[in-house]
This record gives sequence, C-alpha cells and structure tokens, in this order.
Amino acid sequence: MAGKVFSSVTMSLDGFIAPESLSELMGRQWVELQRWVFPQRFFRENLHLGGGGEEGRDNDVLRETFERTGASVMGKRMFDAGEEMWPEDAPFHTPVFVVTHEEREPWERPGGTTFSFVNDGIESALAQARAAAGDRDVRIAGGGATILEFLDAGLVDEFSIAVSPVLFGSGIRLFDGVDAGRVALEQVHAESSDRVTHLTYAVRAR
Amino acid sequence: MAGKVFSSVTMSLDGFIAPESLSELMGRQWVELQRWVFPQRFFRENLHLGGGGEEGRDNDVLRETFERTGASVMGKRMFDAGEEMWPEDAPFHTPVFVVTHEEREPWERPGGTTFSFVNDGIESALAQARAAAGDRDVRIAGGGATILEFLDAGLVDEFSIAVSPVLFGSGIRLFDGVDAGRVALEQVHAESSDRVTHLTYAVRAR
Repeated sequence: MAGKVFSSVTMSLDGFIAPESLSELMGRQWVELQRWVFPQRFFRENLHLGGGGEEGRDNDVLRETFERTGASVMGKRMFDAGEEMWPEDAPFHTPVFVVTHEEREPWERPGGTTFSFVNDGIESALAQARAAAGDRDVRIAGGGATILEFLDAGLVDEFSIAVSPVLFGSGIRLFDGVDAGRVALEQVHAESSDRVTHLTYAVRAR
Repeated sequence: MAGKVFSSVTMSLDGFIAPESLSELMGRQWVELQRWVFPQRFFRENLHLGGGGEEGRDNDVLRETFERTGASVMGKRMFDAGEEMWPEDAPFHTPVFVVTHEEREPWERPGGTTFSFVNDGIESALAQARAAAGDRDVRIAGGGATILEFLDAGLVDEFSIAVSPVLFGSGIRLFDGVDAGRVALEQVHAESSDRVTHLTYAVRAR
C-alpha cells in the first residue's frame, strides 16, 4: 500500500517558518521558534548530541515523524542551507530527492542518507520518492516555497504544523501566495505540550 | 481587583482575521473562518436567533469570553462595520469604547450596550474601559489594527486565538507589522474541538 505525502514544520504564530536571510538561521528568532525541539531525546539521538533529553509527547511527535518517513523531497534552498549545517551523518537516514536545476551525481552520506538531484520537476521528484519510500510516507521536507508548490499542485495529503509561541514580524511565510481557492483543509488532530501546539490537517481539493 | 486586558479572535491558519474589503464580510471565506461559531447555543441566544445549538467546549469558550468581559474597546473600522450588521440589541451588553476621531454623543442600545466615542487615544479608551469593567476584564474587540496597536503598546495581558482550518491567501492579517522585538509570548492554554483550536497566550515584554 502506498504511503501518504505529508509535510511537518514549525511555524510562528504569525505564520513564518524561517527568517528572510539564511544568515539569520540560528539567530534569536529561529532559536525561539525551534526551542521545543532542542531538549528532546530524539533530536539529541538523531544528531548524535549525546544521551538524555525529554521523552514526552513533543519527543514522540519528532520520533513518529521520522519513523513514518520513507523518503523526503526538498527544494534547492533548503538543501544548500543544510549542506552547510548538517553533520556528515545527515539526519534523514533515507533517500532524499532535491528539486533543482543543478545536475549532480547522487551524494551518499554515512548513515543511510542519499541525496539525489532531480532536474525534471516536482512530480518527477515525488514519483521517485514514492518508489523509494515503499509503504512508508513521503515527507515534503521544505523549504516553504517547495511545500507550497506541492500543496498548490494538490500533491499533499496532509500536513502538520507545530505552532510556536513566538511572533516573527518578518521572514518567510509558509502559506505566502497559497492558492486559497483550491485548497480546503480538515483539522484531523491537535495536541499541545507546554511549549508548542501540534496541528494536523488533511488536504482536500475544493 | 482590576481585571485583565485581553483579546479573542478567530484566525485562519495563514494568519488572517478578515477579508480585505468590508464588502466581503459574509462572503465564503469569512463564513468558513467563523463556521465553528454559528452552531453554538451561546451565539444563537446572544443574537436572538432562537433556541437550540451545540453545548460543547466551543460553546463554553464563547460564553466564558462573554461573561469575563466587563467592557470592550474597538476601532472605528470595526464599529462602522458593526453598526450596519449588529441587531438593534447589540451583542455586547456592556459599555463599549470606540477609538475614533469622530466626535459623537454616547449611543445607548437596548440590552445594555452603550457605545462611547473616545477621541484622545487608546490609553484613554482603555482607562475608561477599565473603570467601567470594575473587576471584570476589558476586551480589545478589534479590528486587527486596533488589537495590534494595543499589543505593541504593551497594554494587552493575554489573548486567545481560535485557529480555523482554512487558508485565506489574502485579507487582513492579525499580526501584520507587529513589533516582534518587543512582544514575547508564553503559551498558557490550548484545546481543540473538531472544528477549531483555541490557543491562549500571555504577553510579556522582552
């Protein structure tokens, strides 16, 4: 049975998922946005930051998101930022398909992550990711423009948003320019921890 | 004991609380945004729409918000829209202070709502609302620009947002231009129904 196509991101209460400039990644705003993630046991394990960490629902959400993912798709902007930041043992541990105009041989990392570079569009990237994922799900990892492109094209089955208690004021909005006349949502799950609220929506065509 | 200053609005997942134009109020998007409200018993009672209606947590939230409110403050745009739409027995049943440049005598409605028109700014309106509210809370009712003005000025203690499962794409954003460097938030409550997620944040100065 084929898996679902989903995304899962952390968003500020005013709708931003990243600062405007990559140089602000790891700045104060982004750290506040992601604050719920850093203390979690799964996050520490997956990035080899050492043992310990919290094991509540926030941790479960991170682990479940990882475990359901058989392959990821991402845009060039996210890949370029990550290439600088990820450890050698990149945190995906599955095939990752990068939508880009750049032609490049697959890049295999220790720990099971292989980046493949797809030059013929999002539907091709998704088809390759589905084939690689088997009966697990395909995650549209990011960034925002890539998630929105898949959403507007009707290719996303559901998405989760962790709403952080922070206001950005400026930056990159997840839904900037969304085709609101096409995308209808159904709230299918919601739960909160002290730090963040996890919302899951199913996507329906209008 | 003085009450709190709060706001409570319904927001689309992409951050909008109203369409761009007043003529679109009651249009499809706005109806989808507010869909969680219409079936509630309290809403029906308060607008004299007849008996019946749902009595779950969504209804409790509406009733609790009404009951804690000893006075409201609103901007001229919201008042102008409401003046056309509210029934003669306006749905506030408390003093309402309208921040406006227009000079006008207080406008008393049947059922306990009196609109007073304040020409000397938001702090004056708030002081008058606090005095009128006694030990109950003051609600900054709207619109978005007025809520943001109070928030940026450090005059809001907490706010609640009902996040509806709808994408607007365009319209009036609640937090457009927020002074993000000044406003820090703490998530103090979150709960969901099938239709909507209610989030409450305490506001802290940075």
